[in-house]
Amino acid sequence: MHTGSVGVLSILLSPSTILLSADLNMASILQKLITPLFSGPPELPRNKVTVVGVGQVGMACAVSILLRELTDELALVDVMEDKLKGEMMDLQHGSLLLCDGKLPHRGGDGWGPSAGGGEPAEPRPEKRQHLQTHRPSDRQIQPQLHHHRVDVLTYVTWKLSGLPKHRVIGSGTNLDSARFRFLMAEKLGIHPSSFNGWILGEHGDTSVPVWSGTNVAGVNLQTLNPEIGTENDEENWTETHKMVVDSAYEVIRLKGYTNWAIGLSVADLTESLIRNMSRIHPVSTMVQGMYGISDALPCVLNGGGVASVVNMTLTEDEVSQLQESASTLWDIQKDLQDV
Amino acid sequence: MHTGSVGVLSILLSPSTILLSADLNMASILQKLITPLFSGPPELPRNKVTVVGVGQVGMACAVSILLRELTDELALVDVMEDKLKGEMMDLQHGSLLLCDGKLPHRGGDGWGPSAGGGEPAEPRPEKRQHLQTHRPSDRQIQPQLHHHRVDVLTYVTWKLSGLPKHRVIGSGTNLDSARFRFLMAEKLGIHPSSFNGWILGEHGDTSVPVWSGTNVAGVNLQTLNPEIGTENDEENWTETHKMVVDSAYEVIRLKGYTNWAIGLSVADLTESLIRNMSRIHPVSTMVQGMYGISDALPCVLNGGGVASVVNMTLTEDEVSQLQESASTLWDIQKDLQDV
Amino acid sequence: MHTGSVGVLSILLSPSTILLSADLNMASILQKLITPLFSGPPELPRNKVTVVGVGQVGMACAVSILLRELTDELALVDVMEDKLKGEMMDLQHGSLLLCDGKLPHRGGDGWGPSAGGGEPAEPRPEKRQHLQTHRPSDRQIQPQLHHHRVDVLTYVTWKLSGLPKHRVIGSGTNLDSARFRFLMAEKLGIHPSSFNGWILGEHGDTSVPVWSGTNVAGVNLQTLNPEIGTENDEENWTETHKMVVDSAYEVIRLKGYTNWAIGLSVADLTESLIRNMSRIHPVSTMVQGMYGISDALPCVLNGGGVASVVNMTLTEDEVSQLQESASTLWDIQKDLQDV
Amino acid sequence: MHTGSVGVLSILLSPSTILLSADLNMASILQKLITPLFSGPPELPRNKVTVVGVGQVGMACAVSILLRELTDELALVDVMEDKLKGEMMDLQHGSLLLCDGKLPHRGGDGWGPSAGGGEPAEPRPEKRQHLQTHRPSDRQIQPQLHHHRVDVLTYVTWKLSGLPKHRVIGSGTNLDSARFRFLMAEKLGIHPSSFNGWILGEHGDTSVPVWSGTNVAGVNLQTLNPEIGTENDEENWTETHKMVVDSAYEVIRLKGYTNWAIGLSVADLTESLIRNMSRIHPVSTMVQGMYGISDALPCVLNGGGVASVVNMTLTEDEVSQLQESASTLWDIQKDLQDV
Repeated sequence: MHTGSVGVLSILLSPSTILLSADLNMASILQKLITPLFSGPPELPRNKVTVVGVGQVGMACAVSILLRELTDELALVDVMEDKLKGEMMDLQHGSLLLCDGKLPHRGGDGWGPSAGGGEPAEPRPEKRQHLQTHRPSDRQIQPQLHHHRVDVLTYVTWKLSGLPKHRVIGSGTNLDSARFRFLMAEKLGIHPSSFNGWILGEHGDTSVPVWSGTNVAGVNLQTLNPEIGTENDEENWTETHKMVVDSAYEVIRLKGYTNWAIGLSVADLTESLIRNMSRIHPVSTMVQGMYGISDALPCVLNGGGVASVVNMTLTEDEVSQLQESASTLWDIQKDLQDV
Repeated sequence: MHTGSVGVLSILLSPSTILLSADLNMASILQKLITPLFSGPPELPRNKVTVVGVGQVGMACAVSILLRELTDELALVDVMEDKLKGEMMDLQHGSLLLCDGKLPHRGGDGWGPSAGGGEPAEPRPEKRQHLQTHRPSDRQIQPQLHHHRVDVLTYVTWKLSGLPKHRVIGSGTNLDSARFRFLMAEKLGIHPSSFNGWILGEHGDTSVPVWSGTNVAGVNLQTLNPEIGTENDEENWTETHKMVVDSAYEVIRLKGYTNWAIGLSVADLTESLIRNMSRIHPVSTMVQGMYGISDALPCVLNGGGVASVVNMTLTEDEVSQLQESASTLWDIQKDLQDV
Repeated sequence: MHTGSVGVLSILLSPSTILLSADLNMASILQKLITPLFSGPPELPRNKVTVVGVGQVGMACAVSILLRELTDELALVDVMEDKLKGEMMDLQHGSLLLCDGKLPHRGGDGWGPSAGGGEPAEPRPEKRQHLQTHRPSDRQIQPQLHHHRVDVLTYVTWKLSGLPKHRVIGSGTNLDSARFRFLMAEKLGIHPSSFNGWILGEHGDTSVPVWSGTNVAGVNLQTLNPEIGTENDEENWTETHKMVVDSAYEVIRLKGYTNWAIGLSVADLTESLIRNMSRIHPVSTMVQGMYGISDALPCVLNGGGVASVVNMTLTEDEVSQLQESASTLWDIQKDLQDV
Repeated sequence: MHTGSVGVLSILLSPSTILLSADLNMASILQKLITPLFSGPPELPRNKVTVVGVGQVGMACAVSILLRELTDELALVDVMEDKLKGEMMDLQHGSLLLCDGKLPHRGGDGWGPSAGGGEPAEPRPEKRQHLQTHRPSDRQIQPQLHHHRVDVLTYVTWKLSGLPKHRVIGSGTNLDSARFRFLMAEKLGIHPSSFNGWILGEHGDTSVPVWSGTNVAGVNLQTLNPEIGTENDEENWTETHKMVVDSAYEVIRLKGYTNWAIGLSVADLTESLIRNMSRIHPVSTMVQGMYGISDALPCVLNGGGVASVVNMTLTEDEVSQLQESASTLWDIQKDLQDV
């Protein structure tokens, strides 16, 4: 024919077939309709994501990941079996409208292996048990720990998982930064993606806005107003950071929880990892030594996990704020050594 | 039915605002940074969607529409002001990660005009009040009405809105059909989009699967097994339809409500309308005369709303099932004449 | 903080890092800016596609695949090194606007391995040389072979690649079917996705439209008009198939070649493979025995390649048309045994 | 410059047709199958884009816009009727695989109205004729003008179209900036979206990189190396800008033209306009007074066109480079006063 030299499609694919789940007792129509051509072992999915916990946050993550078309398999895990099965069925009923090869189908019997490639993705059994029994009590965590839970959970996950450090990531201040960019951009009348600004440190009350690096089209806002972010600023820009810190409390007060923004934020991190993009995000890792902290810093994320970290050029004030944020975290981590 | 208060989708289509929200008292940095070039009246949005009701269903609709990038403005409306504001803020915090020009920003003070095109999109004021006060009591609707709520609400919306008939659509059996295609496709080991099958009539218990039209790649399943869908079918395919009917109940039993599949289904309808696609969906309209029913039939949806309806070639048995489904509905509608 | 139990993101990823290509002599700013955290061997891409040939068709395939966001690495291969490098650079310059981790970067020195997972994706060396030298002469292929090139190239690719049969796919009549659905849908005033119809057999003049299976919302068109597709049809629907056959010639006459539709069609097949979707497409495979042909039939495509084939229920006339189409192909393939 | 005849993007925005193209003489099956429900005047499309010129650049723009799903109608215009019809048919044949309601269907008989919103979107007739006859001679434009064509065409388009200034946009240095970000990001081992840098002024040889504003995660590169971009820079970063300037020539030398990157770049601008996003892009407008130039500066683009411009904080050297770039342009524009 006429379409030239690439009419032939030769796509060689790796690890595995999705076994066609033909019930044999349905065989009559099925046997007449479809003839299997290949009967090797099923292939492993290449882009599988497991979401642990199917509460409002977990499901917002799951839906954001599905609608972003980031996976060819998404698994859900939870100890509440009814809730898990209900969420699983509800997503499956929409699968006509999604591109994924496989939708959530995993039960609550432990962590789904979130990958393969020959590596031992499962936590070691004795640890796994620990993790499961740990989680419910997690819900009764003391109030003073509450604000630090995200960063601390990153540490606990790393300790329990047996994974290399660069493969365990806490969402850090990715959401705080998204909120900051939205609020700043609103004031400036532009889209959030056109305002560059970073919030680092701990997710929550002691997070640190890096005013010295805020810019629009390369124009540094501190150049336009040297007092930006300080108490001497007559324009009171620091109020925007206060709104970031308060906004989670405010949303919780209004609707009882937060879920959409954190779901979108986690899908954003997932995209950088799954698509091997090398984008930079402010996430929590096990890295030490940067200003003595182990908390959210801008990191390059690719298919391997955390590839590198950006060395910030901070003002003295920003450094001391970060150190303060980190020391709180460190105190808590010490107490978790035995976990 | 069971999907709660936004089973009725009323998308009125057309032109809105891009007002740059520059606070003048922020002017110092803003004035230095950005020079306005155009100061005419703000433009109307071209693809605005308003979601009425911010419960689990409404928010699943909203998030599906946002992640499908179907709008340049999405508004939320609800009488519960706190909940509404919380959901609005939560979505806004994720706006960095969305393509929309404007995110939900509308309060609970009435129906947001969901469009225009020159047409009076606002319900008439005296009706509007009625509608608002109607909704809370809607929650105490009698059990026997419950299963018919979606289709009935379509009727009520039309009566109250003052819109032409072809611009009011109920989601009909679009979700039932999605569930049917998923369940049938699972049995056949194929993607739901490769199984063609339609469920018509009323959304819920008396919905009618059109077995005579089920096909895969043009191969009619009834040709392979003439008893398909009947009680004489030894392969018991009719159980799949039973699973469709039961699945909403099952999901509600397991997680308390359904939301994801209906949200994706509504976004699917919205896409056909907003993108003017002329795809065919089984939706409820005010059409009369087809087999005497006014319930879900395959309709062509484009930018104008419902453009036309497909005349089904049904078996006698299928026709009588449809009529039975419709007569139930009709009885209820009669009682609503005074609404 | 308050976002509950999935604030921690633990995504375990498999095979490989994209090595950061830092020139050491650029080190000053780079060293100050970024600290590497992980220095293991680079990971292999998980969703790599190689497009062989960077002519109008190859590039339309490449761009369609990139804009559909199907890969994390796309490689281009061609023997024309300048053209190859030019196309590569042009796509790279747009990489800000694409989601892919890696853009085309491969030179013309042979087939890029289009996958990994431990399998030998490279053709055997002695064959590879053969293939390369084969391609230029391919351009002088005799006119009478011309129409059969796509299907024949599938055979040649399989013979040379050493791949299992179910992993070599020719685009078959996927494009013919897309054209058919567009033209039929235009006449019916609906979106092509709402018209179901299949063209099978050989891509080109002797392709076979399966009129007996054409349907809209399950309504079989042959039921409405038993003469559809025959010479006795007063509505002359068969002209639509004639337009499908002629359309490639027509487009070539008008613009010199065809590329966009075949590019979109190949991206469509790629999506089913990469996302492991189990959708059904009419593709050419090495399958024998169906009506004695080895040409385009509806096949289930998933991550493993061709999983199964649909057994068509054809009219006698359709069967004989398919056999005729196939016998032409078979005669040609016999002459290629020595390749 | 070198990107040919569609460097000028003129997208006029607003409401259109859904005409169901049912041939009445096809009525038999069609009448049986589908019953029209609504027979008012057809609606105007809400998101229509017209691409003028169907060469390699125009078609790359068209395909990028289609695959980004930005429109509900795309029209092509060209004086070469055969080529136009061929491209139109080729895209239509892929419409099964696209979301658009309507694909290119417009002939070469003048500018398609690219929208409305109440404004006179058609060029005035007497001007329109002028424009058409102008274009072919455009191809014989003198070599010394060649590099300035994009910016000059913006001016000519505005003069001929009768549109308000803020609705005529030249693609400016949006592509130069994308190339710059790709090349800088490659050196730094990160994704282009994570490197912030702007090239302003004239598209081509005298474009100006704003080194003083380059940053990664808010870290200013000039802070790390004060000599960046100067001749004294031992790391020779200025070579990256030289590569940007050379890259168009290099791609043209290698493949004969550039198209993909400019196509993606134009789709990017279109997205900001169509989705009313208020993102900032470096585009050419009719704005005067900024440093005496009328060339590419960072502008906020929304549904109304150019809303505002960012006031850059440039070094003295950068300002003088921009003025030099602009004066060249201005000289040329003077000579075009009579157009």
